Amino acid sequence: MSPFSSSAPRTEQWHHVRLAVDDDVATVTLARPAKLNALTFGAYADLRDLLAELSRERAVRALVLAGEGRGFCSGGDVDDIIGATLAMDTAQLLDFNRMTGLVVRALREAPFPVIAAVHGVAAGAGAVLALAADFRVADPTARFAFLFTRVGLSGGDMGAAYLLPRVVGLGHATRLLMLGEPVRAPEAERIGLISELTEEGAADTRAAELARRLADGPALAYAQTKALLTAELDMPLAASVELDAATQALLMNGEDYAEFHAAFTEKRSPKWQGR
Amino acid sequence: MSPFSSSAPRTEQWHHVRLAVDDDVATVTLARPAKLNALTFGAYADLRDLLAELSRERAVRALVLAGEGRGFCSGGDVDDIIGATLAMDTAQLLDFNRMTGLVVRALREAPFPVIAAVHGVAAGAGAVLALAADFRVADPTARFAFLFTRVGLSGGDMGAAYLLPRVVGLGHATRLLMLGEPVRAPEAERIGLISELTEEGAADTRAAELARRLADGPALAYAQTKALLTAELDMPLAASVELDAATQALLMNGEDYAEFHAAFTEKRSPKWQGR
Amino acid sequence: MSPFSSSAPRTEQWHHVRLAVDDDVATVTLARPAKLNALTFGAYADLRDLLAELSRERAVRALVLAGEGRGFCSGGDVDDIIGATLAMDTAQLLDFNRMTGLVVRALREAPFPVIAAVHGVAAGAGAVLALAADFRVADPTARFAFLFTRVGLSGGDMGAAYLLPRVVGLGHATRLLMLGEPVRAPEAERIGLISELTEEGAADTRAAELARRLADGPALAYAQTKALLTAELDMPLAASVELDAATQALLMNGEDYAEFHAAFTEKRSPKWQGR
Repeated sequence: MSPFSSSAPRTEQWHHVRLAVDDDVATVTLARPAKLNALTFGAYADLRDLLAELSRERAVRALVLAGEGRGFCSGGDVDDIIGATLAMDTAQLLDFNRMTGLVVRALREAPFPVIAAVHGVAAGAGAVLALAADFRVADPTARFAFLFTRVGLSGGDMGAAYLLPRVVGLGHATRLLMLGEPVRAPEAERIGLISELTEEGAADTRAAELARRLADGPALAYAQTKALLTAELDMPLAASVELDAATQALLMNGEDYAEFHAAFTEKRSPKWQGR
Repeated sequence: MSPFSSSAPRTEQWHHVRLAVDDDVATVTLARPAKLNALTFGAYADLRDLLAELSRERAVRALVLAGEGRGFCSGGDVDDIIGATLAMDTAQLLDFNRMTGLVVRALREAPFPVIAAVHGVAAGAGAVLALAADFRVADPTARFAFLFTRVGLSGGDMGAAYLLPRVVGLGHATRLLMLGEPVRAPEAERIGLISELTEEGAADTRAAELARRLADGPALAYAQTKALLTAELDMPLAASVELDAATQALLMNGEDYAEFHAAFTEKRSPKWQGR
Repeated sequence: MSPFSSSAPRTEQWHHVRLAVDDDVATVTLARPAKLNALTFGAYADLRDLLAELSRERAVRALVLAGEGRGFCSGGDVDDIIGATLAMDTAQLLDFNRMTGLVVRALREAPFPVIAAVHGVAAGAGAVLALAADFRVADPTARFAFLFTRVGLSGGDMGAAYLLPRVVGLGHATRLLMLGEPVRAPEAERIGLISELTEEGAADTRAAELARRLADGPALAYAQTKALLTAELDMPLAASVELDAATQALLMNGEDYAEFHAAFTEKRSPKWQGR
């Protein structure tokens, strides 16, 4: 627990997603397999608040986002979400869309790496959740589809028009967001949308292994790498170089850097503290 | 026609490019095949003003930019443009270069998707026109060459040094803009410069099909997707997420979103209005 | 020599790197082959000041950065740098990290193209030096590794978290900077990290040929192309188009543009002045 904890109690149970914490690795599973893990208002709200809690508690060093059953996530539920939003007024519509955007911001701004374990469909909001992760570990059944225009909405949902061009370039991003066509694993790997392509059925296992490796390693260095990657997309070169310098100076005072040098000198493996 | 039309009359005839409007799809053809569609002052000026007219009239939902004859466009005409600019004073040189830049801005800021249908050469300004489109539908004869340094000018012409790194990454963009070497279709597809590679001779047809599909579909959703892709290249993440939220809230009040839900419920195809 | 030279004398000899100037092509060689060209404080400081001198003198039109022996550069020396920084106070740590960042800024802001000739290992700071070059000419033995997290530091070192996503996209960049795993030549070429893949052992020769070609060509046009590519990564579209227009107007008053037209008219090759 962090010394910077407030009076707010920790949430005992999340009702709309499944959270498992194994030491310092959290696994959040979208667990509505009969509906291909279609997202409900409750699921978005849980993701928003769960990520905020995990981010401030400092107990977690890596997070896996996975989907139970036949696919990762089919996106917003047509009945529960599209139907309901049609009855909403302007303020509620803004609230809904800001909530989904906050989930993406929480994923990008979390002080730990996030690994999406993708098999089967990652569609609509499901594709954006995967896109907002730091790593997309996917098996050959993975299929990404930014379906928003297919329901009459903008392809720029939850930050997708910001993120996707920065991951795959503006040409591919325009095609994917405008047309909403599926991108299967081979193309996704070719254009840089997949971080690691696994054997079929192995995405969850490999994602868990990567999370464990990240949590057991120099976790503060990883967290800062993520923070700089996120921040420097929005910064000019000179300021980025200054931010890098300040960050390295900070980490050079940290325990893991000293430990690396000691281990190197003693010809042994470092014992990382993540500090 | 838009309720926001001014007193300015619609231009009856464009002399330097060919415009055909089929319902809500416009096709602009560079039609100087004996010169490989080399651009003249008049062609640039027509493109600038034609795109402005089409953008404010709201009668068009998709635009194809094509080239007649053996290639797409060989760029600025050596005699008509290079020769003439050598005699210009500083103010005129600025006027000329701002005019060409306005064509690129008009393509990026148009409230409809633009599809470049590319076969054969797309060189110099021709390559940048294709680059500024949302889609590059190209056949195997397509050959892109950012020739500017070959005539002693900067590779950053008409926004190319802004756009190309965002489409193919800084490494490829540096090589292409600095050296001006041709990029043939296979490499162009590999690095993300081509959106759709067609059979030989099929670029115009496939571009027309895509334009028809876009115009018949949820056209406002497409237009907003393009607007967000354009805007968010220049925006930070948090602001992009806010812009996405406001845009989706707006479109959730639109007719196409309701129509999608009705069609889904009634198990039929949506009848898109583009509103 | 530039008319804008100050009283500061030219440095007669650089002790920590080797500088060779052949007419207007400079070759800077990391020449500590017994240590795989591991960088020392002196090497960083020499690179910072040497690049500043060459940039203001205007005698150089292209620069090759190469490594002697079995590899390009293995990064910061574990003993000389990691050991020493562990004994530094905060101000010194900032000084060190700002110095290394200034080398990257000097490479990006130099008024001439920089070509990294890479064979064997380009690790840690060595990988970032190559990344900051305009061209990476590499042979099949090239191996890039952004090792920073492996020593407990941030992957965002010397601007890497700014540059790498803009070269290979955010997905690949996250993987490479977070995990520090080696990228061999085939993958480096596939993701856009290599500009030109040469035959084995030919990286230095091909880099020298490219530098010679750039120096003999329209060098001012090349320098401006580089300057625009660097600047426009940090600029919005409209401002970039305006900068392009002003730059082209300037170059249209230059000697090389007139020379191109004369040569074209006279059906001969242009004699470039680089002005």
